[in-house]
Amino acid sequence: MLQSQIFAKTSKSSRADAESVNADLLTRAGFINKTMAGVYSFLPLGWRVLRNIENLLREEMDPIGAEVFLPSLTPFEQWEKTGRLNSVGILFQACAANDLGRKIHDAHYVLNSTHEEVITPLVQSFAVSHKDFPCAAYQIQTKFRNEARVKSGLLRCREFRMKDLYSFHTSEEDMLDYFFHKAIPAYTRFFDRVGLGDRTVIALASGGDFSKEYSREFQTLCPMGEDQLFQIPGTDTYYNREVAPSKAILWGDPKEKELPRRDVTGKGIIGVAELAAFLKIEVERTTKTLLFSSDKGFVAAMVRGGYDVNEEKLRKVVGCSNMQLASAEEVKKLTKAEVGYAGPIGLPSSVHLVWDESTAHRKNFECGANETDKHTTNANFSRDVAVPEQFYDIKVAREGDLDPETGKRYDVHRAAEVGNVFTLYTKFSDAFGFQFTDKDGKEKPVYMGCYGIGTSRIMGTLAEVLHDDAGLLWPSAVAPFHVHVLPFAKTKEEESFIVAMDLAGSMEKTGHTVLVDDRLDVSAGSRMADSDLIGIPKRIVVSQRSLQAGGAEVKDRLIGTVNIVPLDVLVREGV
Amino acid sequence: MLQSQIFAKTSKSSRADAESVNADLLTRAGFINKTMAGVYSFLPLGWRVLRNIENLLREEMDPIGAEVFLPSLTPFEQWEKTGRLNSVGILFQACAANDLGRKIHDAHYVLNSTHEEVITPLVQSFAVSHKDFPCAAYQIQTKFRNEARVKSGLLRCREFRMKDLYSFHTSEEDMLDYFFHKAIPAYTRFFDRVGLGDRTVIALASGGDFSKEYSREFQTLCPMGEDQLFQIPGTDTYYNREVAPSKAILWGDPKEKELPRRDVTGKGIIGVAELAAFLKIEVERTTKTLLFSSDKGFVAAMVRGGYDVNEEKLRKVVGCSNMQLASAEEVKKLTKAEVGYAGPIGLPSSVHLVWDESTAHRKNFECGANETDKHTTNANFSRDVAVPEQFYDIKVAREGDLDPETGKRYDVHRAAEVGNVFTLYTKFSDAFGFQFTDKDGKEKPVYMGCYGIGTSRIMGTLAEVLHDDAGLLWPSAVAPFHVHVLPFAKTKEEESFIVAMDLAGSMEKTGHTVLVDDRLDVSAGSRMADSDLIGIPKRIVVSQRSLQAGGAEVKDRLIGTVNIVPLDVLVREGV
Repeated sequence: MLQSQIFAKTSKSSRADAESVNADLLTRAGFINKTMAGVYSFLPLGWRVLRNIENLLREEMDPIGAEVFLPSLTPFEQWEKTGRLNSVGILFQACAANDLGRKIHDAHYVLNSTHEEVITPLVQSFAVSHKDFPCAAYQIQTKFRNEARVKSGLLRCREFRMKDLYSFHTSEEDMLDYFFHKAIPAYTRFFDRVGLGDRTVIALASGGDFSKEYSREFQTLCPMGEDQLFQIPGTDTYYNREVAPSKAILWGDPKEKELPRRDVTGKGIIGVAELAAFLKIEVERTTKTLLFSSDKGFVAAMVRGGYDVNEEKLRKVVGCSNMQLASAEEVKKLTKAEVGYAGPIGLPSSVHLVWDESTAHRKNFECGANETDKHTTNANFSRDVAVPEQFYDIKVAREGDLDPETGKRYDVHRAAEVGNVFTLYTKFSDAFGFQFTDKDGKEKPVYMGCYGIGTSRIMGTLAEVLHDDAGLLWPSAVAPFHVHVLPFAKTKEEESFIVAMDLAGSMEKTGHTVLVDDRLDVSAGSRMADSDLIGIPKRIVVSQRSLQAGGAEVKDRLIGTVNIVPLDVLVREGV
Repeated sequence: MLQSQIFAKTSKSSRADAESVNADLLTRAGFINKTMAGVYSFLPLGWRVLRNIENLLREEMDPIGAEVFLPSLTPFEQWEKTGRLNSVGILFQACAANDLGRKIHDAHYVLNSTHEEVITPLVQSFAVSHKDFPCAAYQIQTKFRNEARVKSGLLRCREFRMKDLYSFHTSEEDMLDYFFHKAIPAYTRFFDRVGLGDRTVIALASGGDFSKEYSREFQTLCPMGEDQLFQIPGTDTYYNREVAPSKAILWGDPKEKELPRRDVTGKGIIGVAELAAFLKIEVERTTKTLLFSSDKGFVAAMVRGGYDVNEEKLRKVVGCSNMQLASAEEVKKLTKAEVGYAGPIGLPSSVHLVWDESTAHRKNFECGANETDKHTTNANFSRDVAVPEQFYDIKVAREGDLDPETGKRYDVHRAAEVGNVFTLYTKFSDAFGFQFTDKDGKEKPVYMGCYGIGTSRIMGTLAEVLHDDAGLLWPSAVAPFHVHVLPFAKTKEEESFIVAMDLAGSMEKTGHTVLVDDRLDVSAGSRMADSDLIGIPKRIVVSQRSLQAGGAEVKDRLIGTVNIVPLDVLVREGV
């Protein structure tokens, strides 16, 4: 391809609103263009990279599922059936854009952010007998999410490209077998091939509301990533922060002498740091108490100052299926105080107290006084509040925490989630009444799994982790072209231009993809800088000088080496 | 690929709501599934066909444009700039689907039905000098249209796949050169390769509001098509009905004796057939009069009963840029009557009368009396209304009409529009202030063209025109597979199954795509019927009998011939 045919140009300077390394580099190198926040056009070079990523992914998905293409528009009823219409906040709808449309056809449809609501009834219409299982289908498609904030270039968008695969099984065992022995290995191979294997790890993550199992996330270690991973040192075990079991570093002296309990007025002081400063005590001495209502009654959750309550952990401790923060009214009823002053001392006996292990070992601790603007200091177990039968881990893990099992301090990493795999069990098949007839003639529920990979996010992640000061560094499997040929000539009649075009043609015939920079009116320096910025793995300069030296000058973009290689060797053996 | 891996099954019976041959056949053969009216899922076989069509199209587009991928979501402002936000009635918007989304992020965006509003400012941001032109970009993508009625399967959808190409030029000449010498030839090659060439014609069509030139439509002759083409017999000249010049068959006897004019009361009678029956006169004796307001004043347009007024033709005759049907109020003011009773006699002299040529030669004709419920009969030129200086062609052509130039009666065909090419001139570049700096240093307007092909509609059209009673007949360039291998065996251990799998593997290695029907529990008859329904070009049955006869039984799906071909010949030479 000739560079003059690509209307998109490189740019030396970053845009004022460049929000991340990937957005900045991909924009400057002419791969993407921002249409609006979280919405990008893929320009010729960028679209080639995205297609390479997606075609590579197809090669790994085809053996484990059949490719389909599902619609973006879906009736509201499908989403009502699963109850997600009123739980997924980022859902878009499509409806008439103007009054003309309203007059003609005033309908509205869900604009899908994911496709369980389409694929489940679709497969249901075909798969009826145990003989029709297992089966799996995948698609690569544009997805829409009404994100409140978008800020990380291709890492979080309102419109993005995604591969989603869905599998259908006659039993939990078969679902788990597919999950562990087909989906995860295929994902691992894909991330290896796409060039992210050596910095992508599998993390344990939340299965969401509907999953008994953890889900697994494929996370690429990367400073720009939105997630935090907690690694048990020296092992391959990584937890997403949202599920990391955590043991706080011990704080407090059990031998400390108990002081008289005191209620202190601190009007409007709610934040932990502010409170500790006001009371002139250590943050660790403060206690955060949150009240929840659940199907098992009211719950008070206590964590040490500096920690947050992890609701999923708490839910498991309480053994409830439904739990939410108590309303201001409920808080008032239970504590006689406004929100922000709850504490464990003197709550009605119906409230179930759950103490995090970080709160143990402390003497003379602070807690809310259950009175507006009041804080209790020098509280002590036994004297002021019953010693709990057990301390639990109900907190969000924090950097510095220990893995409870090994007692080792976690290594903490930032990472970008590039893929995920979920066991859905029968959540969606139940919603649609999707059952199959087993060998014994009985109707049984269908088990499902779902498996996502954000292909445009992978492109952003590649830019984020594979670049240097001069520009992008594409792995050859996804590079927009294998070879960038730069003829250094003033006119198209010069030998070096003619030789370069011949070389490009010959290399294309042997299976290389080649971009020829035919912008002869641009300076050699600018063209070489552009080539580094674009980041094609091999640059070949053909000049009068290189020809005199015996061939073309081949530069390896990653390593930086430059060699003169005879033209016939290039054609015969490639780069 | 193994047929057991495709979850979608064939079906013997048509769905009750099958709306067209293409929807019925493609659904029964397991290629598509209707999610809702005008919205389809593409199942494994159907998606393979669509991808084949789109990849074939890429091969023809790559030489004339660079492939990009533009977003579906766009800010409203872009569409306001071109004035189309309030003129395109089928436009969708995307906005929060529920209250949760409204709380989080209450924004709304246009969901693009076409991409001039995205590509124009995008190319503008890169192309500034005459040296950056010409340039062109295309994409293949999902499009959204809020259609009021959808009824023809893949021929008219709310969500569909489309290729759209946009070209940018420094002059009208360059735009036209690209239009005629690059775009049209590439389209012609594509339709030949996709298997529609022998029944696809190029028709002259309306350029829309913005085009001085006709646009060209690629129309596949097909009874299910929504368009009507008027062909000058024995020539390659086809007109879309909306622009076909027309000469009515002469009606009336100039020698007829003039009768006394009479006003007749016919309360509430408006339709032409009803009126003619009521008055006991021929339909051709009646006159339809429509009143328009335009930037050149009021216009009365008269056509013979049975014809409709073609507003685009009328606009050209009047020479106005803006014209619409007069409002009920305006009609009342001009005629003193309700809508439906306008006639040419006695209108204010400021109203410009335009007579269609179909109204000439008549004596004693009928027309509206400009009085509610009244109709004038036995009207005559000269005596009752001035003889027009000229009769024009301002009517929508009708079957039976003549081509005015040759005087020949048109051949009329139904057809499906599978592609179109437009000259946009400077409409969009003007809207965005997109100019370039010419060699002389002056800023000049950019000329544009746009070029569409509906790829999913092509799939529907192929099904519509290429099938027989047994099922689909895919051309091999787009068939889901080249070869359908049917092993007739009871178990996977039988020789015919093992040989069939070997054969499939060997043929795949030599570049064939092969579907193996491994559903050994299904009867041979059903499997052969399924194979005919699916319509893969070659069916290969491997059975004990065929092996004894010296090989496999190869059936040509289109021609119907069946031959025993030795296995090594199949591997070496293909089918």
